[in-house]
This record gives sequence, C-alpha cells and structure tokens, in this order.
Amino acid sequence: NNYFKIAVLPGDGIGPEIISESIKILDVIAEAFQCKFHFDYGLIGAEAIFKTGNPLPEETLKICKESDAVLFGAIGDPVFDNNPEAKVRPEQGLLKLRKELGLFANIRPLKTYASLIDKSPLKREIIEGADIQIFRELVSGIYFGEKFTDPEGEYAYDICKYSREDIIPIAHMAFQEAQKRKKKLTLIDKANVLDTSRLWRKTCQEIAPEYPDVELDYMFVDNAAMQLILNPKHFDVILTENMFGDIISDEASVIGGSIGLLPSASVGEKNALFEPIHGSYPQAKGKGIANPVASILSVAMMLDHLNLHAAADKLRQSVEHAIENKYVTIDLNTKQYYSTSEVGSFIADHI
Amino acid sequence: NNYFKIAVLPGDGIGPEIISESIKILDVIAEAFQCKFHFDYGLIGAEAIFKTGNPLPEETLKICKESDAVLFGAIGDPVFDNNPEAKVRPEQGLLKLRKELGLFANIRPLKTYASLIDKSPLKREIIEGADIQIFRELVSGIYFGEKFTDPEGEYAYDICKYSREDIIPIAHMAFQEAQKRKKKLTLIDKANVLDTSRLWRKTCQEIAPEYPDVELDYMFVDNAAMQLILNPKHFDVILTENMFGDIISDEASVIGGSIGLLPSASVGEKNALFEPIHGSYPQAKGKGIANPVASILSVAMMLDHLNLHAAADKLRQSVEHAIENKYVTIDLNTKQYYSTSEVGSFIADHI
Ligand SMILES: CC(C)[C@H](C(=O)O)[C@@H](O)C(=O)O
Ligand SMILES: CC(C)[C@H](C(=O)O)[C@@H](O)C(=O)O
Repeated sequence: NNYFKIAVLPGDGIGPEIISESIKILDVIAEAFQCKFHFDYGLIGAEAIFKTGNPLPEETLKICKESDAVLFGAIGDPVFDNNPEAKVRPEQGLLKLRKELGLFANIRPLKTYASLIDKSPLKREIIEGADIQIFRELVSGIYFGEKFTDPEGEYAYDICKYSREDIIPIAHMAFQEAQKRKKKLTLIDKANVLDTSRLWRKTCQEIAPEYPDVELDYMFVDNAAMQLILNPKHFDVILTENMFGDIISDEASVIGGSIGLLPSASVGEKNALFEPIHGSYPQAKGKGIANPVASILSVAMMLDHLNLHAAADKLRQSVEHAIENKYVTIDLNTKQYYSTSEVGSFIADHI
Repeated sequence: NNYFKIAVLPGDGIGPEIISESIKILDVIAEAFQCKFHFDYGLIGAEAIFKTGNPLPEETLKICKESDAVLFGAIGDPVFDNNPEAKVRPEQGLLKLRKELGLFANIRPLKTYASLIDKSPLKREIIEGADIQIFRELVSGIYFGEKFTDPEGEYAYDICKYSREDIIPIAHMAFQEAQKRKKKLTLIDKANVLDTSRLWRKTCQEIAPEYPDVELDYMFVDNAAMQLILNPKHFDVILTENMFGDIISDEASVIGGSIGLLPSASVGEKNALFEPIHGSYPQAKGKGIANPVASILSVAMMLDHLNLHAAADKLRQSVEHAIENKYVTIDLNTKQYYSTSEVGSFIADHI
C-alpha cells in the first residue's frame, strides 16, 4: 500500500504555520519514497468555534475516522482561557476527537540532542544520555469523568474514574515497549491516596508476570515530579494516567531543552493522531518564529505508524542534520536563527 | 505568653530521628529566649497502625487539638505502598489529622542558599535569586472527595470537589502574602478541562479587586510544571488546589538543591502543624544520615507562628551558618559530611 489518506487539522495559534511545514515535508517524502498522501483538511478548536459554533464539527470527525492517520497542529485560545464561564471551549474539540477515535495511548518519546544539551535549564551531567518514553492514558480519568458546576456557582466537581479495561491495553503497550528498550517500567500514581491509583497498581501487578523480563516499579507522582529533574536517567518507560501524564510529560520536556522539539502519537485500535506536545502558543501566531520540528517529528512517528520506516528514519536524520548544523528557530538559538518556513525547507531539502 | 503546648508526632521512617533534633533545638531556644515548651508525644501513621490498628488514635488527635502547635515528622511505609489492597494506611492518619484540625493552607517557602546553589540539578543562572512561596489547599479536592472501588475490583473512582468556601480563605491568604512580597500571584489550575479549576479561577477573579496592587495571573498546571524549571524566577506567590500543589511543590523543591532543606506550615483557624516537605525516607531510617534541616526550619516557622519572631530569626541564622560552613549531612556533601545529630547539635550550639 502506498496511498494514504491523511486528515489534516491545523487548529489554533501557531498550528497552521507548523502544519504547513509538515505538509511540505510529506510532499517531499511522497516523491522520494514513491508514495501518495491525500490530504483532507478539517476545522477544530477555536477556529472551528468561530466559524461553525462547534469545536469539533461533524465533517472533521468524519474525515478523521476515514483517515489512515490524523495530523494535528495545536488547540487553544486566550479568549476562552480567561473566561471561566464559556460553555463551548476549543479543548472540547480535541478531547472529543480523542474519545471518538478511541485514542487511548498518548506516546511521548524524550531524548536529548548533543548540540542542544546546553540549552536545557538542567546541567549537562544530569541529562546527557537520558532517553524516556512516556505512555499517558488519554481517554479516561478526570478528563472524561462526569463534571458538574451547580447553577448558583457555589461548588463544582470532577470525577476521576478508571476501570480495568481502561488500563489493561495501555499497560500491555507500555510493557511491550519496555521489552524493546531497557526493560524498566515505572508506573506513576498516587496510590497512597487515590482509589483509582490503587486500581492502576493492582492491574499492572496482575499483568507483570506476562513480562518477566521487565522490571516494574512504582513511584508516587509527587516524588516522580522531583526525580524526573534530579535523575532523569533513572527512567526508561513511564506509564501513567491521563492527568498525571499531562503534567509529567510537559515537565519532562525540559530535559530535551525545548518543548518545540517534542512529538507525540496518540493511538487507538483503529485510528492514530500525531501532534506536537507544545500548545497553540498564541503570542507567536503569524510571526514565523514557531519551531516546526515538533510537528515534523510527529510526522516521522506517523510514517512509522504507516509502516514507512525508511522514510521515517530519513526524516529523523534530516531533522538531526538541521539541528546539528544550527539551522534552528529562535527558541533554540537567539543569536543566529531561521524562520519557521526556512527550517521546514532546510529539512525538506535534505530528504 | 511564654508557655507553649507542643504536640509532637514523630511518625514513620526517619521521622523520629529528625524530630529529636528539632526537640534539641527547642530546648535550647527555651533557655535562650526564656520560654517553656511542654511536649506531648503522639502516635501516627504506620507506627500507630502497628501499635493500635489506627493510623490516627483518638489520643493523638486530642493532644493536637489542645496544642498551640503540632510538630510533625513524616509518614509512610513501603509495606503499605506495595499492597494496593490494604484497607488501613498510614497516610490516612495524616489526612484525617489535616481535616480534623481544619488545616486548609499548606505554605511552602522556597529559596536558594548561596553555598548550595551548585547542588541543584538546575543551572546557577536559572535558580539564583529564585524565591517562591507556595500556597496549597490542603483539606479538600480529590484527596477528600468520595472514593469508591467496586467490590469486584473492576472499576474505581475518586471525586474532586471544591466549593467557593473552600477556596476563599486560602485565596485571601495568598493575596495578602503577595502584598508583602513582589505583588504577583499565580493561580495554577487546569481550567481548560476541569470544572473545579474554573471555580478556582472565577473565585480568585472575584477576590482580586480587593487587592488592586497584586497582579493575578493564571497558568495551566502542565505549563506550570515546565515553567517552574525553565524560569523559576517568574514566580512569586503560587496558589493551587490540593493535588496540583502536592506535585508542583515537590517538583519545585529541586530549585533549592535538596528536599532535605524545605519546611512547611499547615495552618487553619485554630491549629497549625509544622512538617518537613520530605517524606519518611524508609531506606535511611536509623542510619543517622537524614537531613534534620527541613524539620528544624519547620520549627522556625512554628516559632513565627507562636510570635517568637526573634527566636525564629536566630534559628534561621543558625541554620544558614551551618550550611555556609558546610556543616551538613551527606545529601548535601558526599565528601565531607556529618550525622543527623551532629548537624542538629551544631545548629543548637550556635543559638
Ligand atoms: C489542550 C489540552 C486539553 C491538552 C491536555 O490537557 O490533554 C494538552 O495539554 C495536551 O497535553 O495535549
Ligand atoms: C503522605 C501524603 C499523603 C502527602 C500528601 O500527598 O499530601 C505528602 O505527599 C505531602 O505532600 O504532605
């Protein structure tokens, strides 16, 4: 198979700018690796609310369901963030999309680049050689439990719920990934306080015997937030629930020196979505300063998912080549820097 | 008033060792500043479970309620952590104590010590001059909402609930502290996803006009977990809910170079409790290597609370004197180090 339907959702803020670099890359890949990508564009987020009133229009969902992969930009707009009373919010679009497509596992690889190591706020000896893969559960927990605000606005609640079925598939995925790596899996939870965390611990304990070569350990989330900075090399594969994963994986992004470099894949039984970890960065919108690398590396994860491994490897090499040659955006080098589209083109040309 | 009733709860792990250094300090303070401390000891945590079956015996609660201040060591035992089925757990003792005493605000000051700055995993230029005060809500949220595990063990839930009344008192406290400092208050939440976070945002927005000199800003918890490491000097006073506060404040401890240095105060209308941020550190138990400074600095916060400001200042100076003279435990200097009790005595002697 060399024909792929890609749903493209640029979204808000810098989303459209970085996505157009990813499309540029895919056009070059198509030529170099004799395959064809058909792009279907869809609205999502604030953009979709402004145009249709709905953060996830039906048409967008349809495009995504019929796609071989979804390429996602970013979501979020300060207009909504500063208005706690807004009933319709951009984030609902992304959350509903994750749920509807059943994207239960969010996978975030973290590594360091030799030439960028000194960009990190952490000392070289702390991060050099760190290599972590985070598995964050993405369609359950407090994000999707019942929510309620009483009409008088006196109180509110959010329910964090997990069932064994929510945990088992992603736990297997994480164990299997650990088998391919350093064979160490750390479950991050708050089992000394939360019932849901104890369910996670118990479920992982039950599965562990199927992976006798993997060492499973547990860490409370407060301690993990500290250990990630004190000793990131302690970690190999991390498994955690939705909310803790949101916090921990953004925190862990400092290890690599820039959140502008970090890709992610969100996968389910049928569909998969690829997006940079960074958000919509509204302050940078339209200025041509956004770093396209996180989105481009998300494309590499997408190519792997489509079994185009040679193309994925070539793309990753081209990104590394750009970084090693200091062909980067302003977030990585304030003295000598290139625009979003210059960096995209440099990477494309190298393929 | 120069007579104070102090409830002393050493707890688990290294708790007893560090608490005896704090008592040593209080004995010296009593003499030097002409006051008297009466100590009532109580059981709590794993220690209390082993001896009485109850992580917070009635007697302990009574001692605390009648005290002018509670001096708390640490809680937690691996026996329970690795058993998700345990019904009675050490942490329940501390959580119940916080709730029963109405200790709604957990206050954690964070600063750097000139002589320890190079101990931090973060680069000197990132942390030098960082000075943050965290206000964590301590008696509501997901810690205290209804919890449930179904008898078949198929699913579980934890409810995060907040009312305006839970938020208003600690918000005022945080605004007032900001007024005394750099006049900047950052509310950390996840208002793009959680109803409870939107209630926090709305409530703080309502209170803000009473503090026109304080600049209130908002930050999503995932972004905050990143910004704390990228740019800790951005923060002055932080206000947040219980679970996020647990994570963020442990994470922020890396700024100061060691969690072994960080004190906290948990205050309510009637009572107050003082404890180090670090936990029971069971691996170090009985080895004489635990750092007593976090507990000793918690004593300083307690002295301030008892209006013994001169004693508190003197104690803080003595701690700084010990640190500047490298009279520290192994966590701060692996080449030349002193035992828990040597460090305690050195500080006591300086008072
Ligand atoms: C935009 C937001 C809802 C989202 C999340 O919290 O999951 C984002 O932070 C992420 O991590 O993808
Ligand atoms: C021991 C545990 C229940 C506690 C908490 O999570 O509050 C601890 O981590 C703390 O921060 O004081």
